[in-house]
Amino acid sequence: MDVMTLEEKVAQLYGIWTTISDGEEVAPNQHEFSEPLPPWEELTRPGLGQLTRVFGTGPVEPLTGARVLAQTQRDLVANSRLGIPAVAHEECLTGFTAWQATVFPTPLAWGASFDTASVETMAAGIGELMRSVGVHQGLSPVLDVSFDHRWGRTEETISEDPYLVAVLGSAYTRGLESSGIVATLKHFAGYSGSGSGRNHAPVRLGPRDFADIVLPPFETALREGGARSVMNSYAAVDGLPPAADPALMTGLLRETLGFDGVVVADYFAVSMLETTQGVASSPGDAAVQALRAGIDVELPTVRCYGEPLLERIRSGEVGMDVIDRALERVLLQKGELGLLDAGWDPEPAALREGAETLDFDPPHMRALARTLAERSVVLLDNRASVLPLRAPQKLAVVGPAADEVLSLMGCYAFPNHVGVQHPDMPLGIELPTLLDAVRTEFPDAAVTTARGVPVQELDRSGIDEAVRVAGESDVVLAVLGDVAGLFGRGTSGEGCDADDLRLPGLQGELLDGLLDTGKPVVVVLLTGRPYALGAVVDRAAAIVQAFFPGEEGAGAVAGVLSGRVNPSGRLPVSVPATPGGSPATYLHPILGAQSGISSADPTPAFPFGHGLSYTTFALIDLQVTGVDGAVTEELATDGSVTVSATVRNTGERDGAQVVQLYLHDPVASVVRPVTQLAGFARVELAAGAGARVSFALHADRTSFTGRELTRIVESGDLVLQVGTSSTDLPLQATVRVTGPDRVVGVDRVLTTPVEVTAL
Amino acid sequence: MDVMTLEEKVAQLYGIWTTISDGEEVAPNQHEFSEPLPPWEELTRPGLGQLTRVFGTGPVEPLTGARVLAQTQRDLVANSRLGIPAVAHEECLTGFTAWQATVFPTPLAWGASFDTASVETMAAGIGELMRSVGVHQGLSPVLDVSFDHRWGRTEETISEDPYLVAVLGSAYTRGLESSGIVATLKHFAGYSGSGSGRNHAPVRLGPRDFADIVLPPFETALREGGARSVMNSYAAVDGLPPAADPALMTGLLRETLGFDGVVVADYFAVSMLETTQGVASSPGDAAVQALRAGIDVELPTVRCYGEPLLERIRSGEVGMDVIDRALERVLLQKGELGLLDAGWDPEPAALREGAETLDFDPPHMRALARTLAERSVVLLDNRASVLPLRAPQKLAVVGPAADEVLSLMGCYAFPNHVGVQHPDMPLGIELPTLLDAVRTEFPDAAVTTARGVPVQELDRSGIDEAVRVAGESDVVLAVLGDVAGLFGRGTSGEGCDADDLRLPGLQGELLDGLLDTGKPVVVVLLTGRPYALGAVVDRAAAIVQAFFPGEEGAGAVAGVLSGRVNPSGRLPVSVPATPGGSPATYLHPILGAQSGISSADPTPAFPFGHGLSYTTFALIDLQVTGVDGAVTEELATDGSVTVSATVRNTGERDGAQVVQLYLHDPVASVVRPVTQLAGFARVELAAGAGARVSFALHADRTSFTGRELTRIVESGDLVLQVGTSSTDLPLQATVRVTGPDRVVGVDRVLTTPVEVTAL
Repeated sequence: MDVMTLEEKVAQLYGIWTTISDGEEVAPNQHEFSEPLPPWEELTRPGLGQLTRVFGTGPVEPLTGARVLAQTQRDLVANSRLGIPAVAHEECLTGFTAWQATVFPTPLAWGASFDTASVETMAAGIGELMRSVGVHQGLSPVLDVSFDHRWGRTEETISEDPYLVAVLGSAYTRGLESSGIVATLKHFAGYSGSGSGRNHAPVRLGPRDFADIVLPPFETALREGGARSVMNSYAAVDGLPPAADPALMTGLLRETLGFDGVVVADYFAVSMLETTQGVASSPGDAAVQALRAGIDVELPTVRCYGEPLLERIRSGEVGMDVIDRALERVLLQKGELGLLDAGWDPEPAALREGAETLDFDPPHMRALARTLAERSVVLLDNRASVLPLRAPQKLAVVGPAADEVLSLMGCYAFPNHVGVQHPDMPLGIELPTLLDAVRTEFPDAAVTTARGVPVQELDRSGIDEAVRVAGESDVVLAVLGDVAGLFGRGTSGEGCDADDLRLPGLQGELLDGLLDTGKPVVVVLLTGRPYALGAVVDRAAAIVQAFFPGEEGAGAVAGVLSGRVNPSGRLPVSVPATPGGSPATYLHPILGAQSGISSADPTPAFPFGHGLSYTTFALIDLQVTGVDGAVTEELATDGSVTVSATVRNTGERDGAQVVQLYLHDPVASVVRPVTQLAGFARVELAAGAGARVSFALHADRTSFTGRELTRIVESGDLVLQVGTSSTDLPLQATVRVTGPDRVVGVDRVLTTPVEVTAL
Repeated sequence: MDVMTLEEKVAQLYGIWTTISDGEEVAPNQHEFSEPLPPWEELTRPGLGQLTRVFGTGPVEPLTGARVLAQTQRDLVANSRLGIPAVAHEECLTGFTAWQATVFPTPLAWGASFDTASVETMAAGIGELMRSVGVHQGLSPVLDVSFDHRWGRTEETISEDPYLVAVLGSAYTRGLESSGIVATLKHFAGYSGSGSGRNHAPVRLGPRDFADIVLPPFETALREGGARSVMNSYAAVDGLPPAADPALMTGLLRETLGFDGVVVADYFAVSMLETTQGVASSPGDAAVQALRAGIDVELPTVRCYGEPLLERIRSGEVGMDVIDRALERVLLQKGELGLLDAGWDPEPAALREGAETLDFDPPHMRALARTLAERSVVLLDNRASVLPLRAPQKLAVVGPAADEVLSLMGCYAFPNHVGVQHPDMPLGIELPTLLDAVRTEFPDAAVTTARGVPVQELDRSGIDEAVRVAGESDVVLAVLGDVAGLFGRGTSGEGCDADDLRLPGLQGELLDGLLDTGKPVVVVLLTGRPYALGAVVDRAAAIVQAFFPGEEGAGAVAGVLSGRVNPSGRLPVSVPATPGGSPATYLHPILGAQSGISSADPTPAFPFGHGLSYTTFALIDLQVTGVDGAVTEELATDGSVTVSATVRNTGERDGAQVVQLYLHDPVASVVRPVTQLAGFARVELAAGAGARVSFALHADRTSFTGRELTRIVESGDLVLQVGTSSTDLPLQATVRVTGPDRVVGVDRVLTTPVEVTAL
């Protein structure tokens, strides 16, 4: 590194937000939070650490994007003395965030699928697509555990349960990394605890909750996913912003957890140490604090790590060691990516081979998007047995989400994230709305429709017409939900935080009108968070919950309505009964139900893990066995047991059940959740078929942060619960955890392997 | 202590909930959470630590109560070998919680008064009353800082600001202790942080928030109030219940803060370690954990500290040292109270002197209750200048709180706390409702009335009639609010937690109807918490907020309406605009206002510290001077400055202004609140008069918990702000805090003395 000038070193430590201007060349994307930027050629003369979202800022035709990116890299190499290419990163949460790319379901829907394998395959596919056009790094997955569903980014979380986030988040990480793309775990750590669900608001969490709820997904995705990058969380935890916290970003992440990749800043997070959080006095101060904390790369601006940092080093105020540490990590990773190889060629294979088009939404990706969407639809209730719908009928498809593409995709899907700024731009992908899909699914039905109300605006002028349309139908499909967008442009998504969990706008009023018709009403929710359904549950004929199901989501939901798809999604979050009462998840320590102690009733309308099917299942024959295969009632504090149960499809059609293992710790040294997910298996079963599900439960998986703030496996009774939701736990066995209490560390067993054997 | 048997020792470590049966003798009050109790004589044979609420369980005529208590003590002395009397304790938050005793305003109203002296005088009066009938200890004050106004006990907190709680709570403590009554600081510590405002729910707070928000009132009331007892909080903080936390109850409270009095358990809190919190395996385990943590006395039961504890000691499992430590504290305090004196006479002076009646609501107490009530009424808004009301007029007094005594008192007032269980019992005190008081206040007005809706139940049948009554008036007084009660019997009070901050029941709907009449509507709120007023503020002619103002509260509010009383209350809590968004207080670190980062808008309808008057005030001439009296722009990290401003009554009638000093720290090592109260002075000013208000601000008062989790005074700029609410801060000066950063400890300066000099 001694051959590098100071300016060349520092240039490796930031990324610039770029845009393709005139469809032909890259230019810096001047952002309101950035300092005024010099021309591109001047800016990049000392080199450049990262290129931020060449594809993701505007609608760029795929082949053009690939060509411009390659040319930009060539220019960068030619224009700088050392000729080091940039790491090109893109967003990719629900697919490559690029024009015409497959839009997969939102992470909450991954959670609802409990489908580890499909999530991994999806991420591998996303990665291959990005890799094929010269991208190196993807800013996914989100491993935040939802604490407060009012938070606009709840749609980006996988679940309110840390284990489900850990397993599916690791699968995503593994898949993305398998394609050669650097996965970026975010947001490290605690972001989802933002107070009152307000984006960026400080997090009030103590070290025990932090260790037991926030950290496990990161620990798991580092070890079992092999992530090579981590992004900081914006939100201060107990007063300290992660971007300025060496104990978190270096002490915990690197020294304890052994992470040796590159830490990138969330966009503008270094600046915000000064501008919103008030812990830095200037951009230079912010830069030094962030670098010392362990933020290697500032994104997507040079506001702090540019001239202000250079000045601090030139003046001698800060030693070169602060930047050398980050630089070494960046260059090591560039080397690993082949960017430092002699003869490195920025031209992706497709360009070299003279491809005339690039398909960002190829059939295998669409098929996977459909599979995941189908598996993520949750049938919450079917009390009137109106589903599957008999056909043909007169169907009234009513509500603002019925004919709205923005209700099908999360806010990091390209059309929502960027496209809405380009209203004249076609979506770039085929994206039928639910109304379209219902028409396709029920070709012989008489389908009528009315919007009723907008999703967000307070305009009730269409309610009467919608009620009239509903009144003339046999069955009403009330299609309600969110539109995703950024920073207040939607009702869900980054910066779109809710005051409470009431359906947005006047949709509750519309639904009341529809229910008052007396017609059977199937409530179909296309949302980015759970909404309160306590006032609806007794009146609706059926309730179907889909979390932004992606480009194939409309067909998936329509398939559930017709019965073509047997629903198998399970709730990754509790659906509350009342709109207040946040924050609340099923991990209530004590007081999980109403009691005389408080008039507030936290009982959800539908519990975590819940979901119905068109077939029936039996769950029987719980057995706990030791390593010798013999039945046991003991689990050594350093041992393991196998927890087995038989699940059988007792109905007349094929379907899938999610068998769930929970732990209840009756007496512990600290207050514990009433119950907590410890393992799960999604089991596909033909009608009449059965399977034996075996969870290999290690004692480490019973550990928690004890009184000394170390993680311990504690002796004493433990109730193993197997069932089909967090409150439907018919199979229970108590084991005695024996032996000395044991302190476990970061090398503990993090997951519960499951074997499913057909019977 | 060696002369005591094991049973005699242990008997000193619990209190029994007693009741006066047949008006003549004391019997144990069998409670659902208690073990079955033996007969009184058998129970008390080894002695008894405390007598729980002889007066407070049922309606007891004062003189009878005094006589029975004295007789009970004599029996106890005679019946036990050692003849040690019990400490008799009672509740006394808003007055002695006894039949016929003065009901003062609720603590939120003390907060609104900003009237330190009156709170101290009130507490002294309460203490004298209790002392006069043989009571030794009062279970007050509540020093919890309100975090989440949904919590039912918000009415029992003084404020959402820790400094206001610290100053007024210390005044209460000082007053009560001055009478000889042992004050009990509660709840140590963190209770008000209960998640989602659900009573007893675990508290998610980190050590920095705990140190900076939760602890200061306790530190202040110990040092400046001289409290001799502390009660634990129920709610687990980051997983650990205080009753089982030696680091909190002994390490912090005794070793660090130097407390040497008696720690009593909140009722059933020792049992709850086993029964709801699951950190103890049995009553005996709970007893040992609590004793080891530092809970000296179990209340109000022997479930854990009785036989289960005895067994553990007899079996040798637990050493005698565990009980000897607690016993020593209990006996030392009994000695200090004179209970171990030879010839101790349980007969209070009044009985000895042959009094035939005892007045628990004497004129000087009523007068003080009125003063405090008058000073606590907050005029939030008067945009139509309809107040003070011209008389005579046609006044429609509408709403469920208009003719409801339970809307005037907090849940620890005897009539609410106990009386509602005895519906045939007269209140015992004169308690006019607001309707009564309006009729008295406006003798020539035509007053009509209608309830409209109940406070709590969802019955809209009376709305039409109420709207009709309103439509025929000149001015509508919409009197809305809470009824206080225990455990779900009310809308405010212990166990009466709210889902959100919407007015309870259908009162919002009633108010809409009243506003739609087009008549000028004065909204009068009699509540135990702030409710969302964003939807009302543009439509109401005026808004008057009273927090359960006590037995003289109706007259005080009526006086404000007529103008007889010039309103001078200031908000001790933010009044939110929307019903969701909890928890939220004005101590937002960053993001105090809406921003592009979140669509959620935390801007309150009315900010902390806000309140109007019928006169006008000017605030001018800010000056910052050093110890030498010279103007300065510096404050040494171990020094102090005087911050002075002139307040002048520029209107035509006498009134009071609350001059408020706030601190804004632009750059700090951790994220700080946008602004925070550092001093205040309630200044009574005749029309035209002025005063100079001088705050003696020590640098210690700028301290906070820094990165190393020590409390520090940090150098750098600090903005001193003087104004009349947390957002109306016209006078600002920046001082440079100079010198080395300084770690300060528990001996730091805790308060900001104020001098008010008439001009």
